[in-house]
Amino acid sequence: MDTVQAAHTTPAQWMHDAAARARAASAVLAGLPEAARNAALREAGAAIRARAAVIEQANARDLAAFDTSGGSKAFRDRLALNPARIAAMAQGLDEIAALPDPLARTLADWTRPNGLRIERIPQPLGVIGMIYESRPNVGADAAGLCLKAGNAVILRGGSDSFHSARAIHEAVTEGLRAAAVPEAAVQIPPASDRAYVAAMLGAAGQIDLIIPRGGKSLVERVQAEARVPVLAHAEGLCHTYIHAAADTTMAREILANAKMRRTGVCGATETLLIDAAIAPALLPVLVSDLRALGCDFRADARARAIVADLPAASAADFDTEWLDAVLSVAVVDGVEAAIGHILRHGSEHTEAIVTADEAVATRFMRGLSSAVVLWNASTQFCDGGEFGFGAEIGIATGRMHARGPIGLEQLTTFRYLVLGSGQIRP
Amino acid sequence: MDTVQAAHTTPAQWMHDAAARARAASAVLAGLPEAARNAALREAGAAIRARAAVIEQANARDLAAFDTSGGSKAFRDRLALNPARIAAMAQGLDEIAALPDPLARTLADWTRPNGLRIERIPQPLGVIGMIYESRPNVGADAAGLCLKAGNAVILRGGSDSFHSARAIHEAVTEGLRAAAVPEAAVQIPPASDRAYVAAMLGAAGQIDLIIPRGGKSLVERVQAEARVPVLAHAEGLCHTYIHAAADTTMAREILANAKMRRTGVCGATETLLIDAAIAPALLPVLVSDLRALGCDFRADARARAIVADLPAASAADFDTEWLDAVLSVAVVDGVEAAIGHILRHGSEHTEAIVTADEAVATRFMRGLSSAVVLWNASTQFCDGGEFGFGAEIGIATGRMHARGPIGLEQLTTFRYLVLGSGQIRP
Repeated sequence: MDTVQAAHTTPAQWMHDAAARARAASAVLAGLPEAARNAALREAGAAIRARAAVIEQANARDLAAFDTSGGSKAFRDRLALNPARIAAMAQGLDEIAALPDPLARTLADWTRPNGLRIERIPQPLGVIGMIYESRPNVGADAAGLCLKAGNAVILRGGSDSFHSARAIHEAVTEGLRAAAVPEAAVQIPPASDRAYVAAMLGAAGQIDLIIPRGGKSLVERVQAEARVPVLAHAEGLCHTYIHAAADTTMAREILANAKMRRTGVCGATETLLIDAAIAPALLPVLVSDLRALGCDFRADARARAIVADLPAASAADFDTEWLDAVLSVAVVDGVEAAIGHILRHGSEHTEAIVTADEAVATRFMRGLSSAVVLWNASTQFCDGGEFGFGAEIGIATGRMHARGPIGLEQLTTFRYLVLGSGQIRP
Repeated sequence: MDTVQAAHTTPAQWMHDAAARARAASAVLAGLPEAARNAALREAGAAIRARAAVIEQANARDLAAFDTSGGSKAFRDRLALNPARIAAMAQGLDEIAALPDPLARTLADWTRPNGLRIERIPQPLGVIGMIYESRPNVGADAAGLCLKAGNAVILRGGSDSFHSARAIHEAVTEGLRAAAVPEAAVQIPPASDRAYVAAMLGAAGQIDLIIPRGGKSLVERVQAEARVPVLAHAEGLCHTYIHAAADTTMAREILANAKMRRTGVCGATETLLIDAAIAPALLPVLVSDLRALGCDFRADARARAIVADLPAASAADFDTEWLDAVLSVAVVDGVEAAIGHILRHGSEHTEAIVTADEAVATRFMRGLSSAVVLWNASTQFCDGGEFGFGAEIGIATGRMHARGPIGLEQLTTFRYLVLGSGQIRP
């Protein structure tokens, strides 16, 4: 097996060699028919099912180490695997196998006046580096999406989940072997040393893309240090703006969902902007709705003039991604003020407007440059599955290559075929 | 005017401030209707025409300085402006104004089972840094393309063309002013100091994309040092492969064009691969054709066994982008050998096959990952104009964001609009 190296190899040397093996594997993968890539995914799923007990034992080692270190309950929950979660991981690989082949599309196709026919077709990106934190299932998902799109991947999970990641990787490797796909298509470092992260970030020219998935500090470190292109979002400071012409029932339902459906996801709303014209009537109702769901508030002076017992927001609160049952609240005067607030405080991730006024909605959608802008829908829809991508490997808020949910399509690049009949250039 | 700073500003400070001004300008540009962007382009073209004499005088200063430094004739030719070249620069801006608006398209559009309608729409990239060498017209072209796509741009031309670039920039600024577009949409550093290049390369988070256009050493330096995403190609080591089933007349015409139409462009063929089955009959004819056009050769032993007076190729010759009237020649055994040679020696830029056999052509096109692969056409077609893009700002061979000719479409990113009717996420 080529995934465990002699202990005397340095992390930088291991990464260099692993990336070279991944490059060779990616060339094979790019030429494989869809059926072969899908077979590898299904075999990997089957191997995960067959090795469920081994994976659970490995996870128990990680949990035992975690319990002696005294981390948070939420973190432990993300780290823990059980039979249902292991089955879901295998199921996820089957579902990726069932998705349409992202390499089979023709992206564009036109004929020039001289008769040259030009086709733009998808091409795998090549070698992807995935850096993630506690959830061990992210490794299986990422391996599945990268493989389906014809890419090799090097997975670097959190050190807390090292044994779990290793056991999952062994199952995936077994699947690759069963489908006669190069094992180097999915690799993990042989140890949990953080130097492997640094080695990955420095592998310019060897790794084509790094996708970090985790908390803000992880992503910001990757963005600051990587010499390799990065597709990511550091935070999702998402806004819901309730315009004066909002349907109040719709506004109540959307805000409760956008804030409280799940508070820890990047598409959760962190700040409510509400028009001054509607706030006296609607804000008390919204506060009451959300309080019933366990939500706390940080409100500006204008909101507190309407609901006196709202805690006061500090200047920093409107720049805070709570990822918790807390909502910043500001009263604004119309759509331009809402846009201005979002441009000052937002993270270009996801924003929503609730209004029955199409002209106002259009202005809001055109005035922002966030990756996803919704009209009369919950910000929690910012998700690859909800977009119909089948699965996602993360969400991107940068300007290059892809924005919003990163699905199979975003894990490809393109190239041109030009079909001629002897044309020469004048 | 905000483009000339006090002399005591350091290059890093100037770039920091310029990027902040560019960011503000880009937000205005992104919201401008097409007519306003086009008016700025036409006004800039008109100002270049009106200031033709001033631009020529500035260019004369650059040429005088160049003549005392004793550079090459080819370099001087690239640097020199005359009334025809200045008129062409203005005409180029009018032509960009006449191109379809890259921001007006809907890139994709679908409706989810829950009724959410999702639209993927274009978005300007933001702030672009353009680094180029001697040709002063590149600055006008780049400004035009960036503006049309709603981007602000900072232009850093070669120090040899500083006065020319400055005079062109003044004309463009006049055009922006006449069209009431923020002047900071197009900026150039106030001095020719190379530290401005370093400042641009380090402006992570402030500049969204750097496009270097010039020789291999410039591009490689930018790629190695930039902390900002780069769209570029370091070299175009392009191959033409003549398969055994090629039409010989077509093969002769394509090769002569691919190598000799212009030898200094990145899409020029640098290496001929010819099948062993056809080489004894065809290679002598090809050599004779190209010799008549002034081409020299570096040939492997198998080619020299057929045409004895071909100069012998060294090992490095097949890795050399000649950009001159020189052709490397290797005899190969079939399409797999041709693909193997290109994967070992190519630069993922442009390759062509000449064959009447569709299965072989398909194998060649599928077996390579170069940005452009042509069948029965000249490699010199790798060009934004020839692709129908109207104009190009460069050619990219990397994997992220865009590959091949970089036209207006490639100077945009995208975002999603999601149109609902009160949907909340289950």
